[in-house]
Amino acid sequence: MDKKFIENSFKELQNSICSQLEQADGKAKFAEDIWQREEGGGGITRIIQKGNVLEKGGVLFSAVFGKTPDKIIQALQIPQSDFYATGVSIVLHPSNPWVPIIHMNVRYFEMSNGLCWFGGGIDLTPHYIDKEEAAFFHSNLKQVCDKHNKEYYPNFKKWADDYFFIKHRNETRGVGGIFFDRLTATESISIEQRFDFVLDVGKTFAPVYCEIINKKKEKPYTEKEKIWQKIRRGRYVEFNLVYDKGTKFGLDTNGRTESILMSLPPEVNWEYNFKPEKNSKEEETLNLLKKDINWI
Amino acid sequence: MDKKFIENSFKELQNSICSQLEQADGKAKFAEDIWQREEGGGGITRIIQKGNVLEKGGVLFSAVFGKTPDKIIQALQIPQSDFYATGVSIVLHPSNPWVPIIHMNVRYFEMSNGLCWFGGGIDLTPHYIDKEEAAFFHSNLKQVCDKHNKEYYPNFKKWADDYFFIKHRNETRGVGGIFFDRLTATESISIEQRFDFVLDVGKTFAPVYCEIINKKKEKPYTEKEKIWQKIRRGRYVEFNLVYDKGTKFGLDTNGRTESILMSLPPEVNWEYNFKPEKNSKEEETLNLLKKDINWI
Repeated sequence: MDKKFIENSFKELQNSICSQLEQADGKAKFAEDIWQREEGGGGITRIIQKGNVLEKGGVLFSAVFGKTPDKIIQALQIPQSDFYATGVSIVLHPSNPWVPIIHMNVRYFEMSNGLCWFGGGIDLTPHYIDKEEAAFFHSNLKQVCDKHNKEYYPNFKKWADDYFFIKHRNETRGVGGIFFDRLTATESISIEQRFDFVLDVGKTFAPVYCEIINKKKEKPYTEKEKIWQKIRRGRYVEFNLVYDKGTKFGLDTNGRTESILMSLPPEVNWEYNFKPEKNSKEEETLNLLKKDINWI
Repeated sequence: MDKKFIENSFKELQNSICSQLEQADGKAKFAEDIWQREEGGGGITRIIQKGNVLEKGGVLFSAVFGKTPDKIIQALQIPQSDFYATGVSIVLHPSNPWVPIIHMNVRYFEMSNGLCWFGGGIDLTPHYIDKEEAAFFHSNLKQVCDKHNKEYYPNFKKWADDYFFIKHRNETRGVGGIFFDRLTATESISIEQRFDFVLDVGKTFAPVYCEIINKKKEKPYTEKEKIWQKIRRGRYVEFNLVYDKGTKFGLDTNGRTESILMSLPPEVNWEYNFKPEKNSKEEETLNLLKKDINWI
């Protein structure tokens, strides 16, 4: 596939998502940092902070290329070659604890030896799990998956459950979503069809999240609920710094630290051995942080 | 060496440190959790929270044994065998941003094949670097090192600079201290002499930190200084979750999560691309977060 076409589509996706999010927020605007990568390429980092709805978050575009970092060469067990990678990455931390944290990523990777693939996913991390909201979220993901391939949703939903898992807490990060990687062309699926799917995933993100925002953003909350949110944000930090492959890879390969760590939340709290009250809604959420729940 | 003797000395060290810290805090008391490890051994986790001086911290003792985890076997490239490990670990987060964060660890490790060694260290992480305080801290470490071996301080000071380094920020964690690992018996140093040194390091911790506390605990601070503290605490989280070998090893080998992550601070903040004002004391601190500074 023409990589410039993919790159431009991702750039447009970033623009479109930012304008939808600014509208949903109603106050804050994205600030933009354009950066160059010494070894080749660069990116457009857009950050929103202290909004009505969005306390902190980023919508990042990048397109980088050059000599493939040794870490990838080793991981893929391939000979030394050049690479090209482009993608859009999003993490949003709302101020209202009733509004969930969301993450989305779409990416394309190409090696000079001809190997190329798409990866990505969307997952939702509510501070308080709302089963109806989780069902709405997953239904929308299933719909975009089914449009392209009936096997996508069940496979990628399971992949997300396995990937967004905080092993040392024995908890999923949230209600999951979809996750996929190394989607290459096969005998029955062309690389163009993979791209169409990935772009559709990207376009699903903003309308779905904005609808969730609009349902919850005015819901009043207490100090206790805000504290719970800060503790749950701590789990998000633990996942991203201990397990997330994109974060680790970025830090290992000398990526732009401030862009990579835009995913970390504002105002986080760790309290030793915090246990929610019996039969509280906090406990109910903890009990739902499990793999293999059919939310739909 | 008799491991029961080492174990009991470490337990006494925990007791002595806790009582000195409670006295320095003047308000909060340590709460104790005694835990068993399914595969063998257990520990005594002591946590202090919401004190006059100490906002959150832990002084942990453990003595665990059993089949050596595969991760260690692989790392050491040795045949499968049993292990025994005992140690004391401390991280303290003060509420006053003028009081530095401190970390101390002493540990003993023994394999059924006869291999055994000591490890440990102390390092100081001021939110605001005070050169006089750093000199006082390092002088005390040098003194305890020199008492045992003139090569210890220069070697272990450099080891700490290299170990407590946040690569993706290009910053040291703080003003360093001493760090050492795999101190086995040699032709000229017996394992008993190694133990005497390690125990002396452990005993140096409380009086030195309490003196630092007493000098700074009443110093008034502003909201701005508190925000800076929360941002610096974020760096502490980044180090511990991304680089710290003890944390990674504990999480990997199914250790007691709440004890391992007691090192994480309360009330942390991440702000995108935060830059201190030119010529501010925050900037001055950043400029001093470098390796190879001779603080004495």
